Amino acid sequence: MAAFARRKAQRLARPDPSRKRALDARAAELARLLNAHERFCTTSSCDGRVLLADTDGGGIQKKNCTWLLVTHDPCAKGDVMTALEKSTGDVVFKFEPFVLHVLCRELQDAQLLHSVAVDSGFRNSGITVGRGGKITMAVRSTHCLEVPLSHKGRLMVSDEYIEFLVHVANQKMEENIRRIERFHKGLELALEAAVPTDTLAPKGPEKSRSVYVHRRKRRTIREQANPSGELEPQDDTESSLDLFAEIMI
Amino acid sequence: MAAFARRKAQRLARPDPSRKRALDARAAELARLLNAHERFCTTSSCDGRVLLADTDGGGIQKKNCTWLLVTHDPCAKGDVMTALEKSTGDVVFKFEPFVLHVLCRELQDAQLLHSVAVDSGFRNSGITVGRGGKITMAVRSTHCLEVPLSHKGRLMVSDEYIEFLVHVANQKMEENIRRIERFHKGLELALEAAVPTDTLAPKGPEKSRSVYVHRRKRRTIREQANPSGELEPQDDTESSLDLFAEIMI
Repeated sequence: MAAFARRKAQRLARPDPSRKRALDARAAELARLLNAHERFCTTSSCDGRVLLADTDGGGIQKKNCTWLLVTHDPCAKGDVMTALEKSTGDVVFKFEPFVLHVLCRELQDAQLLHSVAVDSGFRNSGITVGRGGKITMAVRSTHCLEVPLSHKGRLMVSDEYIEFLVHVANQKMEENIRRIERFHKGLELALEAAVPTDTLAPKGPEKSRSVYVHRRKRRTIREQANPSGELEPQDDTESSLDLFAEIMI
Repeated sequence: MAAFARRKAQRLARPDPSRKRALDARAAELARLLNAHERFCTTSSCDGRVLLADTDGGGIQKKNCTWLLVTHDPCAKGDVMTALEKSTGDVVFKFEPFVLHVLCRELQDAQLLHSVAVDSGFRNSGITVGRGGKITMAVRSTHCLEVPLSHKGRLMVSDEYIEFLVHVANQKMEENIRRIERFHKGLELALEAAVPTDTLAPKGPEKSRSVYVHRRKRRTIREQANPSGELEPQDDTESSLDLFAEIMI
């Protein structure tokens, strides 16, 4: 308990190492909500963005990659065309969805977040348990768009295609925002309803039951946050896993 | 313990629900390796594939999506061109990397798999702890390629671009195979080195230390499986998370 509080205080005191030196707007609201609770500490995030990466052809790695354009807002074709003029290598157009990493004090805290994230459409979310028991929940989407545009400085697609692509990316950005909003709303309800772990005995049967207290309440929460039951998932790799091969041995 | 064995036996007895009705070759080898251990049970997998999905413009959802082409082998431009002739809607060209889901008997078993997966380049891997304590490890990559090709039946890109795209996809497929092989090798070494949890007392300090027994051995394993220390990651969203905004509150 005390160790987590110390770790959280250290994280919050660190300077922001990002290029922007600040949180994106929606992630900032979520960080405020989560960090107000003793058992959570957000560590990194991105609202979702469109970026144009200029590489030397060896893949999008930090060391050999220049960003020609980054935007967290809907994108305009003109911005892409202007950015492309600066290109010398292989340019890739990417839409990267929302991502959020949260340190959690106990496994059941991570389970709560994970469940709300998946219910909100972030189907690639997952928990990591590291050395020394550090528990991190990563909110991740299956949303993806990655389109090679140029090769060795030469544009491989038409103006009309770029206009179409920008339209597709903006649609994905809208869906991404809907998922973030659903996650935020679901989280508010879940955190309000969840019995604080602090009020439970640190050991014994009561504690192991507390996750299920969350879970029973969450069914109602989910219905409130998403009354239509629609998730409108796009390109949900994970949701089609039942089509994949099952073990045959 | 007995409950996990029962669940595993039930899973293995089920008919394969996939379209192919069989495991992909590399996933089959991994399933054999993992299922030989009491504490693991693989549930779904895909070696990685290129697919052409024809949609009605509402996104790649199962209900409104036809697959014009699926291949787990390197792709040829001719196959893509032939498949495109059948298109009537919005066609998207996708490369989907390796994915594997494994039920784990205990959290420390999932931690072991997770660590080997991340070390092999599958940086979006994560653990899920469900109702009733069901623990699943998902091996996932950050690898992605998703390219809209046509709109309302009309091709938006040139033949030359498709040739280039197929080349990029095949490069990603090669890197995907390298990661699977690294994962397989790392897993063999880790499973060999790990102290079987069955031999440890079910409770007490020895048990809580067993993960760290794995971890100390794994450092050596990692060096053996990947002596150069190179992961050659491409488009590793997660690895650039230190560039993202940190909490500022």
